[in-house]
Amino acid sequence: MIVVLAGGVGAARFLQGVVQVVPQQDITIIVNTGDDREFYGLHVSPDIDIVLYTLAGIVNETQGWGIRDDTYHTMQQLSRYGNEDWFMLGDRDLATHIHRSQLLRQGKSLSAVTDDLRTRLGLQLRVLPMSDQPVATHIQTPAGLLHFQEYMVKRHCSDEVQDVRFVGATEARPAPGVLDALKAADAILIAPSNPIVSIGSILAVPGVHDVLHEASGQVVAVSPIIGGAPIKGPADKLMRGLGMEVSAVGVTRCYRDFLDVMVIDHQDAQLVGAIEDLGIPTVVTNTIMRDSASKAALARSVLEAAGLTF
Amino acid sequence: MIVVLAGGVGAARFLQGVVQVVPQQDITIIVNTGDDREFYGLHVSPDIDIVLYTLAGIVNETQGWGIRDDTYHTMQQLSRYGNEDWFMLGDRDLATHIHRSQLLRQGKSLSAVTDDLRTRLGLQLRVLPMSDQPVATHIQTPAGLLHFQEYMVKRHCSDEVQDVRFVGATEARPAPGVLDALKAADAILIAPSNPIVSIGSILAVPGVHDVLHEASGQVVAVSPIIGGAPIKGPADKLMRGLGMEVSAVGVTRCYRDFLDVMVIDHQDAQLVGAIEDLGIPTVVTNTIMRDSASKAALARSVLEAAGLTF
Repeated sequence: MIVVLAGGVGAARFLQGVVQVVPQQDITIIVNTGDDREFYGLHVSPDIDIVLYTLAGIVNETQGWGIRDDTYHTMQQLSRYGNEDWFMLGDRDLATHIHRSQLLRQGKSLSAVTDDLRTRLGLQLRVLPMSDQPVATHIQTPAGLLHFQEYMVKRHCSDEVQDVRFVGATEARPAPGVLDALKAADAILIAPSNPIVSIGSILAVPGVHDVLHEASGQVVAVSPIIGGAPIKGPADKLMRGLGMEVSAVGVTRCYRDFLDVMVIDHQDAQLVGAIEDLGIPTVVTNTIMRDSASKAALARSVLEAAGLTF
Repeated sequence: MIVVLAGGVGAARFLQGVVQVVPQQDITIIVNTGDDREFYGLHVSPDIDIVLYTLAGIVNETQGWGIRDDTYHTMQQLSRYGNEDWFMLGDRDLATHIHRSQLLRQGKSLSAVTDDLRTRLGLQLRVLPMSDQPVATHIQTPAGLLHFQEYMVKRHCSDEVQDVRFVGATEARPAPGVLDALKAADAILIAPSNPIVSIGSILAVPGVHDVLHEASGQVVAVSPIIGGAPIKGPADKLMRGLGMEVSAVGVTRCYRDFLDVMVIDHQDAQLVGAIEDLGIPTVVTNTIMRDSASKAALARSVLEAAGLTF
């Protein structure tokens, strides 16, 4: 069994490689839900949807999120009714949020709803939200405490980052299956996702950090920072705001308590010494996922670093 | 002040004539909400929407409902998630239901939400739901008690009609302004809507029937049955099922307690005697609304029958 801790676009692309190498029924994905937010009374789970859409082959590959060839007619009309329209939700995409919200209101858990969507989209792997309870990532800025989506999407990451808070995390419990999957895993892969808001929120769910620390399977992380910057997203701004070094070394420090192997890109080969000084063996490979073959090659390297061969 | 009791398509087309003759600020429309139903956890008010879309000039004129040039991408995806798809909701139309549901969940009344939509769509007249409490029209059939939308849209009016029930009506109250508008009206026009399920549900709201009986303004109805059949919808099946005569005479009997004048089509001129035998003066005119001019002409005839000139 392989467990992957996942955020959004970077994780989904990494998973496109993993599913080429590992049978779907041997994969459990634990997904960040700290970015979840209600829009128009509908529950949106951006990272779960990115992972599901990507693995189901219906994602808008250019954006990395949303459904391919989607239209925006509902949002245009919602905007006419005076609603905010800074978070783009396509018409097909809205079906996911309508369906999810309906099931949640019927009393189903986010886990159950996610599993329903996963099945409907024809996927065999297991997709678990990090928690069934709401955990909302907020960014402390000079303009106040902003929900992560407001910080990132509405205000385009333009505010100075002073702190990051996972509101609700202390009261949240890991979703059913999360801790057991981590305990039973032959390898735990940390996708090249934002270490602060994507993986950090998963780590903030009580119990997850401790189980990772004690896990019998190897914990292997892929750095999302290559050559001093993330491929996508605001990881650099968040790390810098929190006083961290924006590099694979900084990422390693986020995970060093439980990390067994760090995987970094050839561009960062000069950082091997600094990472190994933290006590973490390091693998250098190509971590830039340009196409299907490079995604599979990265997955193979990471699994090999975890001591597994496929 | 003119008050119009309204169902869906027939009423909306009649109102397109009324607004050509009467200034919008002098019009109050009381709309049937017995057809309301939740789809995918969203509150759909078909008749309110037909009236609003039609008067705002955005209705799909061919269907009589929905928004012009709408797409169905959200529903297609909802169907992929295993949801029923017999009630067609377009993408732009869904915005109305999402917006309405959000405001209702925030604690706003259906009246307040309807007024919000009315304003957003640029209309100056007053649109009141018959009640802010749920009243659900059900049809008793050999297959059981069916919600009106199931009877009509899902099962295409194929079941034998044994009875009609307005579930919740006895506990419902008229929406704020409904009784006052009826009391203060210079004329109360009953649109050519289904007398059983569209107007009948409004009459089932406690207080409405009595106020109509005592109203100082003239009450004038337009028969939706012409030449023994409705222009649109299942009024004939419902009237027949309830043992009523499917004609302008049968419609008159539904309203005779409070009706001052009946307006019928030239095709039914031979029914004048039978209607006047019920004690109801009758006006014969062209009630078939083919175009903008014939709608305005009908409105003028009806208002004249109410003793008003514009």
